[in-house]
Amino acid sequence: MKRNDAAIPPQGRHRYALRIYYEDTDAGGIVYHANYLRYAERARTGALRDMGIPHAEMTEQFGTMFVVRRIEVDYLMPARLDDSLTVETTALEVGGASLTLRQDVIGPHGQCARLDVRLACVAPGGSPVGGSKPKRMPPRWREALTAMRDAAPVGAGT
Amino acid sequence: MKRNDAAIPPQGRHRYALRIYYEDTDAGGIVYHANYLRYAERARTGALRDMGIPHAEMTEQFGTMFVVRRIEVDYLMPARLDDSLTVETTALEVGGASLTLRQDVIGPHGQCARLDVRLACVAPGGSPVGGSKPKRMPPRWREALTAMRDAAPVGAGT
Amino acid sequence: MKRNDAAIPPQGRHRYALRIYYEDTDAGGIVYHANYLRYAERARTGALRDMGIPHAEMTEQFGTMFVVRRIEVDYLMPARLDDSLTVETTALEVGGASLTLRQDVIGPHGQCARLDVRLACVAPGGSPVGGSKPKRMPPRWREALTAMRDAAPVGAGT
Amino acid sequence: MKRNDAAIPPQGRHRYALRIYYEDTDAGGIVYHANYLRYAERARTGALRDMGIPHAEMTEQFGTMFVVRRIEVDYLMPARLDDSLTVETTALEVGGASLTLRQDVIGPHGQCARLDVRLACVAPGGSPVGGSKPKRMPPRWREALTAMRDAAPVGAGT
Repeated sequence: MKRNDAAIPPQGRHRYALRIYYEDTDAGGIVYHANYLRYAERARTGALRDMGIPHAEMTEQFGTMFVVRRIEVDYLMPARLDDSLTVETTALEVGGASLTLRQDVIGPHGQCARLDVRLACVAPGGSPVGGSKPKRMPPRWREALTAMRDAAPVGAGT
Repeated sequence: MKRNDAAIPPQGRHRYALRIYYEDTDAGGIVYHANYLRYAERARTGALRDMGIPHAEMTEQFGTMFVVRRIEVDYLMPARLDDSLTVETTALEVGGASLTLRQDVIGPHGQCARLDVRLACVAPGGSPVGGSKPKRMPPRWREALTAMRDAAPVGAGT
Repeated sequence: MKRNDAAIPPQGRHRYALRIYYEDTDAGGIVYHANYLRYAERARTGALRDMGIPHAEMTEQFGTMFVVRRIEVDYLMPARLDDSLTVETTALEVGGASLTLRQDVIGPHGQCARLDVRLACVAPGGSPVGGSKPKRMPPRWREALTAMRDAAPVGAGT
Repeated sequence: MKRNDAAIPPQGRHRYALRIYYEDTDAGGIVYHANYLRYAERARTGALRDMGIPHAEMTEQFGTMFVVRRIEVDYLMPARLDDSLTVETTALEVGGASLTLRQDVIGPHGQCARLDVRLACVAPGGSPVGGSKPKRMPPRWREALTAMRDAAPVGAGT
């Protein structure tokens, strides 16, 4: 954490707030299940931006971006129209070219969903066929994400 | 018409079928209103492809693409989960670098929506600030679209 | 405006801020055109909520809701990933059971889109076939919306 | 399979075709990752409908519906604009009130994604707080789904 000027969120847990509109719901009267992945992506983007790792810098300065490799999502309780949700993001694992985040979506009555998201750091614009090649994270990012992971209380996020 | 090898739809009216899934609906139990613009775009893409004007040719061979400049949409009757809809597309106006389509969305109980969509033919990748510059349609496309417009019965689509 | 306790936005112009994420963009590198209708709906909901007319009250207390009858949208300039947008909402017309709003979407380089949206006040749960019947707005809402319209400078929104 | 009149797909593998439009893609030039969950849901709905278990019958006749409890998705290769995709659905596990499907999304250059989706059979309209209570599947459905699972070659879907 030392000399890193990134803003690590308190206890390594970043919070992102959003509200549910009609566009988010389905005919079952609840939030459409695929949309939780959109909220998680908004929250990840916000977390990285708040830590000083915005998209623009990623691609323009370092020629890298994060892509999603795998997601596990557990649906625990439905969210509904007008609900205010919070996405809480913590870092589970930080590798040389990969990153696993835990993202808990909390609603007014309790936890709605938990997502574990594995991201790979790649060079953008890979071939149409094979996808993109992994690329090591710039050291400053890795330090910031490691500091985020280390800031979480032991046993947190389980 | 004449030497044009494009497949003009009968009576100048292209039909595109789609079905309504949960993703399309909202908590009101009906199709979310913005989604009609998605269906219209699917139908336009299908119409152009069926007439021999696919996306790939547009950008790769001619360096042009259509962008939406204006849409008027009237919502007439809601569509619901599991409904089968048809989007009927006709050409209202064909200009040198622009095109106005009428797109009627028909459901099991009657017409759900009518969209009048004005498209401009542009060179892709315009400046981030000013948008894209208009560019004349390749003659073969213009002929095909004019033939589509002329194939509609007089007074149709009104 | 008199005795109405609703919070009329300054100069009758409500502002709603949002940011563009990957979910909002398309392969053209810009915001997908149908999404402006989603932003406008978020902004309308926020405007009504801020004025003391939330969804919940609409349906639970008065048995009414607003549905979209017609939208005209002009696309003026593309918005892009990471852009911060503001949706500015003014009331153009306030009728007994209808309402026309103007919604301008402003990006970092200028205006991206203008939407004129006509809403009808209806009783929810109309028949599957015929849609919903118009229903007069509760007086308190109509007063608030009329005050919003009257608070705009003459000639504004044109 | 015996006396069951449901149409079990050959080798227990249902195929659903779809095409990628602008609405499906993002500024990275590829299909937005959350959309694979939408395609999987379209394909599940199609599979159940083709097997004689449509939504309408589920809710109206039996008072049950399937909800998603958990999804694991691996992203293997990006899909792009205009691609034709096939979603192949097989039944991994069939329980009394639950169901696990494997859904492979295949593109023109190979497999794009694999989703394992666990569904619960519930009574619709559970409480806002606690979600919906599990409910046993009607015997006819369970027979059809078991027949689908048993029709897959041993070792398939691994």
